[in-house]
Amino acid sequence: MTRLLYSLCGQDPDCRFSPHVWKAIMALRHKGLDFEEVPRPFTAIKAIEGGFSPTVPLLRDGDRLVRDSFDIALYLEEAYPDRPTLFSGEGGKALSRGIEGYSQFIVQPALVRIVAKDIHDLLAPEDQAYFRTSREARLGRSLEEVDAAAGAEIDALPPKLEPIRHVLKHQPFLGGQGPLFADYILFGALQWTRIVSPKPILPEGDPVTEWFGRCLDLHGGVGRAAAAA
Amino acid sequence: MTRLLYSLCGQDPDCRFSPHVWKAIMALRHKGLDFEEVPRPFTAIKAIEGGFSPTVPLLRDGDRLVRDSFDIALYLEEAYPDRPTLFSGEGGKALSRGIEGYSQFIVQPALVRIVAKDIHDLLAPEDQAYFRTSREARLGRSLEEVDAAAGAEIDALPPKLEPIRHVLKHQPFLGGQGPLFADYILFGALQWTRIVSPKPILPEGDPVTEWFGRCLDLHGGVGRAAAAA
Repeated sequence: MTRLLYSLCGQDPDCRFSPHVWKAIMALRHKGLDFEEVPRPFTAIKAIEGGFSPTVPLLRDGDRLVRDSFDIALYLEEAYPDRPTLFSGEGGKALSRGIEGYSQFIVQPALVRIVAKDIHDLLAPEDQAYFRTSREARLGRSLEEVDAAAGAEIDALPPKLEPIRHVLKHQPFLGGQGPLFADYILFGALQWTRIVSPKPILPEGDPVTEWFGRCLDLHGGVGRAAAAA
Repeated sequence: MTRLLYSLCGQDPDCRFSPHVWKAIMALRHKGLDFEEVPRPFTAIKAIEGGFSPTVPLLRDGDRLVRDSFDIALYLEEAYPDRPTLFSGEGGKALSRGIEGYSQFIVQPALVRIVAKDIHDLLAPEDQAYFRTSREARLGRSLEEVDAAAGAEIDALPPKLEPIRHVLKHQPFLGGQGPLFADYILFGALQWTRIVSPKPILPEGDPVTEWFGRCLDLHGGVGRAAAAA
């Protein structure tokens, strides 16, 4: 086994929650590639592979090191062209950046305000200190204040998911009849919240919730096998 | 000439502002296809082609009638496969729906609150009555109340455009190195505001403003040739 995926974990190494790592896991499974996941807590990431990347996912594929979930997907598409495609053409590759932008700048800013305190609570003490300092600086409030407003963020979430609901009126996956990397981008964000937080975030019976369920079942149910909080 | 594009106009038939018609105009020009634009005011749309469609754009291509901007783009891609592609593959086709969802449910709801009163003011009296009734019902306030809050909507717009800004860090167009239909989807929304409203909506020097300028110059500058308000 020379294929390693460095990922993020909480105090419990089985609690692997990074949204970006989930995109890479799904991309590897989509390509039918075996790999060993190597979970590391926040404060140990900078020591991985001699400090190759300040963030995970980081993929070692034989001699090759690739960081960043989108770059990993592009690498896999190029290195394994005979396996199922992650982009279905050049247009799909270009427009996946738009889905990434929507996920990172419309969906994730809402989700992080819902689950930030829950993430904190599952980290080891030294990671809690790092997480609290960096996230409170970014969010401009204490984690406790952010968490007190989580209910209002959940209430304000449905309109932000309307673009996904629109797509699902036309097709079962963002990628069309089957999933593409674009699906995994948004799946990663929602899987993150599923793993770290017991809060009911997605409305029952919503088309987005149903799509998320389809994604959890993909590739032998690798997403569903990760325990929900 | 058997190719007609029915579009929307104000009291001045040269003021053609529908965002969805602009998507179709750009798609036709992208394919290098000649057509005659047939502008109609709001209240005359239901009489076009025997009531074929309650909305424009409506394309007549010889014997074929096609309504809805996305369906027109799909039709052109299928009918003229040897012309420049609007989607660059099946992935691009599927993910263009995601861009459409983002445009229609994140960007356009903000823009309509900025320009609704401006649109009203350029319509003929009978269209003004229709527009006021339908839009005030949809927006839940009078057009004058909506317009009084336009400045606050403009101030709140930049974060909603962050997904486009993210894409433009990686490539000059949403479609990659050149434009695809996905670019025209968002271009249509911004061209709509450019034609109907004198309000400064896009920040100067912003990457989104620069991308919009590149789109205005495409296909012989067809977008720029339409007078700004």
